Amino acid sequence: DPIRAQYGEFFLLIECAYEGQRTFLCPFMYVNNDINLYRGLIQGLPKQQASLWMTRSYPVQNPAGAPLRAGTRIGAAMSFRDRRLVEATLALEEGGGEPLGLASSPVLGIRYFPDLAGGPEGTLAHDIVAFTGSGKVVADVWSGTPTLAFFPSPNQELADLGPVRVGRGTRYAMGFTITDIRKVADASR
Amino acid sequence: DPIRAQYGEFFLLIECAYEGQRTFLCPFMYVNNDINLYRGLIQGLPKQQASLWMTRSYPVQNPAGAPLRAGTRIGAAMSFRDRRLVEATLALEEGGGEPLGLASSPVLGIRYFPDLAGGPEGTLAHDIVAFTGSGKVVADVWSGTPTLAFFPSPNQELADLGPVRVGRGTRYAMGFTITDIRKVADASR
Amino acid sequence: DPIRAQYGEFFLLIECAYEGQRTFLCPFMYVNNDINLYRGLIQGLPKQQASLWMTRSYPVQNPAGAPLRAGTRIGAAMSFRDRRLVEATLALEEGGGEPLGLASSPVLGIRYFPDLAGGPEGTLAHDIVAFTGSGKVVADVWSGTPTLAFFPSPNQELADLGPVRVGRGTRYAMGFTITDIRKVADASR
Amino acid sequence: DPIRAQYGEFFLLIECAYEGQRTFLCPFMYVNNDINLYRGLIQGLPKQQASLWMTRSYPVQNPAGAPLRAGTRIGAAMSFRDRRLVEATLALEEGGGEPLGLASSPVLGIRYFPDLAGGPEGTLAHDIVAFTGSGKVVADVWSGTPTLAFFPSPNQELADLGPVRVGRGTRYAMGFTITDIRKVADASR
Repeated sequence: DPIRAQYGEFFLLIECAYEGQRTFLCPFMYVNNDINLYRGLIQGLPKQQASLWMTRSYPVQNPAGAPLRAGTRIGAAMSFRDRRLVEATLALEEGGGEPLGLASSPVLGIRYFPDLAGGPEGTLAHDIVAFTGSGKVVADVWSGTPTLAFFPSPNQELADLGPVRVGRGTRYAMGFTITDIRKVADASR
Repeated sequence: DPIRAQYGEFFLLIECAYEGQRTFLCPFMYVNNDINLYRGLIQGLPKQQASLWMTRSYPVQNPAGAPLRAGTRIGAAMSFRDRRLVEATLALEEGGGEPLGLASSPVLGIRYFPDLAGGPEGTLAHDIVAFTGSGKVVADVWSGTPTLAFFPSPNQELADLGPVRVGRGTRYAMGFTITDIRKVADASR
Repeated sequence: DPIRAQYGEFFLLIECAYEGQRTFLCPFMYVNNDINLYRGLIQGLPKQQASLWMTRSYPVQNPAGAPLRAGTRIGAAMSFRDRRLVEATLALEEGGGEPLGLASSPVLGIRYFPDLAGGPEGTLAHDIVAFTGSGKVVADVWSGTPTLAFFPSPNQELADLGPVRVGRGTRYAMGFTITDIRKVADASR
Repeated sequence: DPIRAQYGEFFLLIECAYEGQRTFLCPFMYVNNDINLYRGLIQGLPKQQASLWMTRSYPVQNPAGAPLRAGTRIGAAMSFRDRRLVEATLALEEGGGEPLGLASSPVLGIRYFPDLAGGPEGTLAHDIVAFTGSGKVVADVWSGTPTLAFFPSPNQELADLGPVRVGRGTRYAMGFTITDIRKVADASR
C-alpha cells in the first residue's frame, strides 16, 4: 500500500560542531505522510504536515521526462497550510558531486514532550538526541546550478533561516536505515 | 486564519464505569487539522489524520440548504488513508433530544510515548488520563432516525467496534474548554 | 454523501452595465468540489480547483464558536496550487446589511470550449452567457469592517484585479436555484 | 513548478476493433492534476479528479527503495471521493516484457459537451475521437505476477468492468506527445 510506505520530505540542516565533531542540527522537517510524522515526533525530529512536490526523472527522451542528463531542469516546492514556503530549482550539469547533509554526517534533533497531565510547566522529555543511520547507499548523483527561495509564513520561522548565499546544488537517491537514537544532552536548561 | 482554527473530528466513545462513575474511554479519534492532532497526542487522545465531511445546515429554504427542521436528512463520513471507514445519516424529526458522549460525562484517554532514546522497551509515559472540560454549552439540538455503517481497514481496528444496534441519533452544536488533564492510572501494567 | 453535495467557493464579480442593465461579469471562480467544477465549466462559469477555508459560526458562547454577534471576527482564505491567493477578515458589527453580488443582480459568464478535433484554431463555443437563478432567499445577514488582500500567482491574473479600496463587508447565507442559462452574445469576435 | 507539470493517472482501456483495426476505447480516466483534467476533457478523454499512489523505484539497495530487480514488489492504488476503487500489486520477476495499452495501439475517446444554453436536450459535441501520439519511447520494462482488485462506488460504474481473469503484469516508463486528435464518428445516435 504505497499510501503508507513512501513520502516526500523537506528539511533544513544547520551545520555545527558538537563536542568537536561536525554535525547537523535539524530545526524544521516537513513531510506528507502521517505515519512518518508520528515516528519522527517520538524520535526527536520536528516533523510537521505539509504539501511537497518534486520533479521526477524518467529514463525517456521526452519534454516532460526530465531525464538525468545535462540540460534538464528540475524543481521542488514545499507548502505549509496552503502557503508556499520554499521553492528550489536545479539545472543539471554533470553526473557526480558531493552528497550533502544527511548523507555526510550525524544529525542532532530535539525531542520535546510537554507533560500536560503534570501542569503547564512540566515536561516528559526535553533532550538533544543524535542518530546516524546505517547502511547508507547513494546513487544517481547529479550536480548543477540551483535557485533557492524561502517565503514568509505567519507562524513558521523557517524564512528567518533562508539562504544568504546559494552554492552548488546536488540531487541523488539515498537509502539508509535509522537504527540508533541516543540522548546526548538535556535541552531543558 | 481558519485553516488553523477550525476542524472536523470523528471519535468513538466506549461507555464504561471507572471507580464507580459513568465515564467514556476513547480508543479512536480522527481529525483534519494538524495543530489539533499534535495537541491531542500530548494530551492523551489517540488522534490520527483523516478526511471528514458533514452536511452543514443553513437557515434557508432550498434543496441544498439542509435547514434544521423535520424532514431534513444530513450525512457525515470519515475516510482514513483514502478509504471510507464510517458513514452516517440522520433524518431530523424533532427539535430537542439528549446530548450524548462528550457533552454528558468525563472522558478517559490513553497517553503513550515510547522512549526511542531509551531502547525499544522503554516508555516516557503510558497513562490513563481524564479530562472533563469546563463551560459546556449546547445548542440547536435535533434528533431523529440514524443510519450508521463502519467499513474495514487493513490497519485500523475501528470496524471491530462497529454498531451492533443503532438507537436514536442527535445532532447539536457544543462548545467547551479543556482546562484539566490529570493522570488517573498507570496503563503500562 | 456530503463529499458530493456541499462545497466552498470564491469568486470575483466585476460590476458592469450590459444593454442598459446593471450586471456582473465573473472572470474567476474557485471551488473545492469536482462535480461543481464540471457543472460550472459546461455552464459558462470559469471554475478552477482550489483550497478554501471560511470560519463557521456556531450558536454557542465559546472562544472558538465565532457566533453571529457584534465583536466576532471571521476569516476566509483561498489557495490555488499550494499558494495563498486571497485572505479576508470581517469584524461583525451589526445584524443586517446589503446583500451583494450574486444575491442582487444577474451574472454574465464566458463559455468557451476549444475544438481540439477541429485543429488549434477552432472553437465549439465561445459565448457570453447569462443566468439569474430563481428562488433566492437570504438569511443571517451581518455586516462590519473587512480586510481584504490578494496575493500574486505565477499563472493566475487574479491579483491584477485586487482591491483599490475596501468598503463595508457583509456575510450571509443564501439559497437559490439556477434554472436558466442563455447565450446573450458571441464572444469570439 | 512540479505542481503543474507532473501527475499520476489511472485509466481503463477496453480492447476492441474499429473499422478493422485493433484499438482501445477509454471509458474511465482518473488524474491528480487539475491542468491535465481540463486538457483531457476538451480532448475527449473522460478524466476525473482522484487520489493516486504508486510505489516509486529507487536505484538503491534498501528495504524501502523498491529497486527494479527480481523480488521487488510494487503497489498502486486509486481512490475517488475518499473511497478506494482500485488496488494493484506487481511482483517483479524479469526485465523486459510486452508494453500494453497506450504504448501499443491507437486510443478512442468520447468527447461530450452538453449545451446548457441550448436547453437540456442540446449538445455542442458528442463524438468518438481518436488519437495516437507521436515519439513514443519506452524504458525500464519489467514484468511479473500481478494482483488487481476493483471496489464498488455509489456513483462510478468502474467496478462493473473489473477483472474476470488477471494475466501478466508489466511496469515501464513511457514518453509520448499527443499531436493529433480527430473526430472519427458521431456518438449521438
